[in-house]
Amino acid sequence: MNEHVRVFQPDGPAMSPDELEAAIRAVGAERYHDKHEFHKLMHGGKLNKGQVAAWALNRYVYQEAIPRKDAAFMSRVHDRALRREWIHRIHDHDGMVPAEEEGGLERWLRLTDGLGLDRDYVTSMEGALPATRFACEAYVRFVVEQPLVVAVASSLTELFAPSIHRERISGMLERYDFINDPEMEYGRRRLNQAPRDANFALQFVRDHAKTRDLQEGCINAVRFKCNVLWAMLDALHLAYVQGMIPPGAYQPEA
Amino acid sequence: MNEHVRVFQPDGPAMSPDELEAAIRAVGAERYHDKHEFHKLMHGGKLNKGQVAAWALNRYVYQEAIPRKDAAFMSRVHDRALRREWIHRIHDHDGMVPAEEEGGLERWLRLTDGLGLDRDYVTSMEGALPATRFACEAYVRFVVEQPLVVAVASSLTELFAPSIHRERISGMLERYDFINDPEMEYGRRRLNQAPRDANFALQFVRDHAKTRDLQEGCINAVRFKCNVLWAMLDALHLAYVQGMIPPGAYQPEA
Repeated sequence: MNEHVRVFQPDGPAMSPDELEAAIRAVGAERYHDKHEFHKLMHGGKLNKGQVAAWALNRYVYQEAIPRKDAAFMSRVHDRALRREWIHRIHDHDGMVPAEEEGGLERWLRLTDGLGLDRDYVTSMEGALPATRFACEAYVRFVVEQPLVVAVASSLTELFAPSIHRERISGMLERYDFINDPEMEYGRRRLNQAPRDANFALQFVRDHAKTRDLQEGCINAVRFKCNVLWAMLDALHLAYVQGMIPPGAYQPEA
Repeated sequence: MNEHVRVFQPDGPAMSPDELEAAIRAVGAERYHDKHEFHKLMHGGKLNKGQVAAWALNRYVYQEAIPRKDAAFMSRVHDRALRREWIHRIHDHDGMVPAEEEGGLERWLRLTDGLGLDRDYVTSMEGALPATRFACEAYVRFVVEQPLVVAVASSLTELFAPSIHRERISGMLERYDFINDPEMEYGRRRLNQAPRDANFALQFVRDHAKTRDLQEGCINAVRFKCNVLWAMLDALHLAYVQGMIPPGAYQPEA
């Protein structure tokens, strides 16, 4: 009925750390959202300004969820060393006061500014697709409800992120005359941040997921996270490529 | 930018109960999922068996969430009379032991049986669309996180349900030779259950949402719930009408 049905063997023998890492990387090869049709259209220069604006507006919902997700995760962590490592993720997104670092959300809003979107409208999230908000909130809940190492594993899609950022920066600048260099600063910064975060999280998962049960949980966490990202592009595709915009969602100007 | 932007006036004058009810009913007229393209295709006899099976499989996720939603709601209720009224919703779905009443989930599984789906596969929810699961879990969370009367209001899409059930029963039986009468028992039962529940909830909202702030919250709760249902059909449409089935989701046989 379904060739992708998960072979879940919680009582099976534990994998080695290398086997676990390979299984996690295989999820990305199969399911990361760079394989989605909307991604291909966007990076291939096939979208118009309104469609790219819809993407940026919806992706803001995800950016906005990330520091809340990291705070929700930290609320469960009793190990001070782990919290001290993790908190820089929140600063990466929210910046720091006094503002030596403006933060990723501010950089994202420069992109939505450049696309002609009103900041209050973007940050209100009123025009975002409901499916985007459901998917992002599912991620915030996931890191609260799952075992700690499984919650950490859900961040491991960052292993697959650098190539998408690199592709996005060059592709978007080259193919869309409505996108300018400063608006790509978010992705440029993530090129350094994502590998650092991913390497830390990967080492944590290799060290702490010692039973088959937890290992399967970690692999499934990466599938779950790929589903979050994929569902966001699915919703964008139906609304802004197929034209079935749900009631209340952002309407690009004609 | 968006003609549907909500006019939120939390400090405005309170509405009368009749005005509040009219505003809630207007949300249904604008946004209930009987206006969705997938709904029209399904009820118009335009889908094949695999597409209807995909719908039933995904809709199971919603059915399965409802008793958990009602339990989550009850976990917050200190008023014994309200809990005693509310609990019959859980029995409506889960049945009763000793089994004088099999419950709505069992009736739903007769529908998925009839469509040729394996019960273990359906109840595992492995093949359901991620967007479906995100939307349904958002509903479970909503009734925990929102003010009590707003949580009650989110059930008020049941005001709009009887006509959809009536239309579904006659339309599906007439137009699809792979659907038989016993499989429509779920909807037939809801024809009686939904109005009873909706009338109780509507009265509760009329009685308890006395400030403009709570009233706007209640109206918005119905919008939220319409979004949940709409997002489920959006996901089905993209996957099973447009053919963009996400990795891991149910693949109808050719």
